[in-house]
Amino acid sequence: MRAYNIIMKKRDGIELTSEEIEFMINEYCAERIPDYQMAAFLMAVYLKGMDARETADLTMAMLHSGEVVDLSSIGKTTVDKHSTGGVGDKVSLILAPVVAAAGIPVPMMSGRGLGHTGGTLDKLESIPGFRTKLSEEEFIDAVKKIGLAIIGQTKSLAPADKKMYALRDVTATVESIPLITGSILSKKLAAGVDALVMDVKTGKGAFMSTLEQASELARTIIDTAAIMKKKVVALITDMNQPLGMTAGNALEIGETVATLEGKGPDDLKEIVLALAGHMLFLGGVSPDPVEGRKKAVELLESGAGLKKFKEMVEIQGGDVKAIDDTSLLPRAAHKIPVKAEKAGFVHELNALEVGIVCVALGAGRETVDSDIDPAVGVVLEKKIGDSVETGSTLAVIHSNTPGVEKIVDRLRKAYTIKEEEARAPTLIHETITT
Amino acid sequence: MRAYNIIMKKRDGIELTSEEIEFMINEYCAERIPDYQMAAFLMAVYLKGMDARETADLTMAMLHSGEVVDLSSIGKTTVDKHSTGGVGDKVSLILAPVVAAAGIPVPMMSGRGLGHTGGTLDKLESIPGFRTKLSEEEFIDAVKKIGLAIIGQTKSLAPADKKMYALRDVTATVESIPLITGSILSKKLAAGVDALVMDVKTGKGAFMSTLEQASELARTIIDTAAIMKKKVVALITDMNQPLGMTAGNALEIGETVATLEGKGPDDLKEIVLALAGHMLFLGGVSPDPVEGRKKAVELLESGAGLKKFKEMVEIQGGDVKAIDDTSLLPRAAHKIPVKAEKAGFVHELNALEVGIVCVALGAGRETVDSDIDPAVGVVLEKKIGDSVETGSTLAVIHSNTPGVEKIVDRLRKAYTIKEEEARAPTLIHETITT
Repeated sequence: MRAYNIIMKKRDGIELTSEEIEFMINEYCAERIPDYQMAAFLMAVYLKGMDARETADLTMAMLHSGEVVDLSSIGKTTVDKHSTGGVGDKVSLILAPVVAAAGIPVPMMSGRGLGHTGGTLDKLESIPGFRTKLSEEEFIDAVKKIGLAIIGQTKSLAPADKKMYALRDVTATVESIPLITGSILSKKLAAGVDALVMDVKTGKGAFMSTLEQASELARTIIDTAAIMKKKVVALITDMNQPLGMTAGNALEIGETVATLEGKGPDDLKEIVLALAGHMLFLGGVSPDPVEGRKKAVELLESGAGLKKFKEMVEIQGGDVKAIDDTSLLPRAAHKIPVKAEKAGFVHELNALEVGIVCVALGAGRETVDSDIDPAVGVVLEKKIGDSVETGSTLAVIHSNTPGVEKIVDRLRKAYTIKEEEARAPTLIHETITT
Repeated sequence: MRAYNIIMKKRDGIELTSEEIEFMINEYCAERIPDYQMAAFLMAVYLKGMDARETADLTMAMLHSGEVVDLSSIGKTTVDKHSTGGVGDKVSLILAPVVAAAGIPVPMMSGRGLGHTGGTLDKLESIPGFRTKLSEEEFIDAVKKIGLAIIGQTKSLAPADKKMYALRDVTATVESIPLITGSILSKKLAAGVDALVMDVKTGKGAFMSTLEQASELARTIIDTAAIMKKKVVALITDMNQPLGMTAGNALEIGETVATLEGKGPDDLKEIVLALAGHMLFLGGVSPDPVEGRKKAVELLESGAGLKKFKEMVEIQGGDVKAIDDTSLLPRAAHKIPVKAEKAGFVHELNALEVGIVCVALGAGRETVDSDIDPAVGVVLEKKIGDSVETGSTLAVIHSNTPGVEKIVDRLRKAYTIKEEEARAPTLIHETITT
């Protein structure tokens, strides 16, 4: 078998065999296929695609390129959640404890923010002392003990994905549905979970900006997972405007705690509850997602979710006092209001622009090596559908540097205000199951 | 400007600017763009194409990646010929001296054989003493003195092509019309010629196996050259069966001399004369290609072409005695006839198979570093349209190793013999001009 012939076949749009796909991934990881051949292959995959069987073989080969975590000692069906990333997306932080409170183990391996999207690990690390690096043993022990832990991916999981992603990132081959599917599923399945709920974001602040692309990605992930005998459900949710009222690490922890206390914004709660319903169903606790949602409402309202969240903070070394009193979380030195220049209704609040503003403030990363400031970010006071007067505060910028006029101006321009009334957007566009 | 964005544009099928193309080539040559980004770019070009303007910019950037030979001291319009390569293709060896005999300077830079196709330089080097490496000064002096020289490309010409070709060769991006055009034209124009005649081969033994592909390549080369203000004419000629009666280096020199003596096979002569007609027209010696062809017939029949060929052999250090008596050329130890197993007419004589047989005998290269044996090859006694009896000799294998039964068998199978009569194929399919 030769890499050349495999590249040529894919270039010509011919379906690859399982052996060919396995060969490409294994030999690339073993550094017997050079980057330039893999780059040509990835571009051919980008432009010619892969069918469900090929995508499953790709995922399998990537999954087996490293260690596969054995969660069998937990002794129950484990369920994880993955989001394709958005602005203000703190869903995992609320969802995981609620689901764990229902008795379903949630061993969650999460990521960091890159570009305009935030990362769950960065948010958790704004809690003083919180450790996102646990050994596999500590991780499994935590899940056994309290039913929940959220950590970063260990290096030994799906190393093929790390190597391929670094190459895709510099060869314009990131936005390929089979390659994204392989990347997401290989990591999630290497982490050993039994079932997965996907939150595929669509809209201006999402990776997949159109509903069509998001649906195609969701469908591909579901089909690929089905071939691999894994249960996956995907919700396609709106990311035209940020989710909830905050974007920025400590600010989002504050909003997480408020939501777990029953005081969260409706859009955030709705998405958490919908995903929780499916996780409770997949985890075997509820007979269907509707019943699952009902149970999740109870767990959120009873404070069981908050209790579980605090248990997690404690077991992962975080300071629980900063949860009981979120004013103890990192706080920015300056709060600068962004005011409306005319009256009317908010028609748009561009999530991508809000994400870029957060990166400019220091809340996000421009490159994987950038440092982030946990305190800074944006608190939104108005969202799509809200009415505003001239001079109303649209949002408040939390900054550690004064003189952020350009950022204030950019955030103001992220709002589109018109005279006619506007409606809040549909939050859940589609639910895709096997 | 960033390589990433240029790769992305081409990936999305968007036309690149002149500056973007120049940037890719220059930065790649300067090793500021790594192989993996160029590989992704080349695959994107392969699958998305380039229009005439982009192809001209690519050619120009490749052409200017190194030295451009200045032939102005020759003081006349120079004309060169390029073939896309075939089996038994000794056309240049006859054509160049005939055209030079008409008073048109032919400064020819030629290539070596690779894979199943032969190379002009390898053939010339089977003449004892013949030097294909001349300095630029020696080369120009020879052209000034006798009107003709055939040498290898110097390393300083179009280095971008060498670097890109090596990468294309391992990333399945060779067979791309804009990339082939850039490769051919950048080298030929860097060699400083004013006009060019292309022999684009089509058929089983050619790079472009279908007439449609060959026409597209020819049309692209002509259009690109026109943008660059260079006169190019292309003939699309048949390469389903080998050209002439020999394949193998010294054997082809023998046939070259026989043809220059007026004893050559018709197919070879016809292609030489057609190309010569166009070269005489482009070089300003004849008012049109038809008159050019007539003059070429005279020069061939009068022995003026042979005289010029011998002058070239002498000036390039070759032993002219081996031209006067071609039995002094390298000869193989064994001559093994290949006999027909049934009677009928030859319907096919697969040029690719004959080329592979020659490589197996040692006449060609499997890799660029392979040594070749000048003596070995194949003499064809029957070609398409000929009648054969059971036991007739179809061809004679010239080998330096005994026991080549498998090769004999393979060559026999290159012939398709059927009962019904067959006609020799059309030799010149199309003539394409600006």
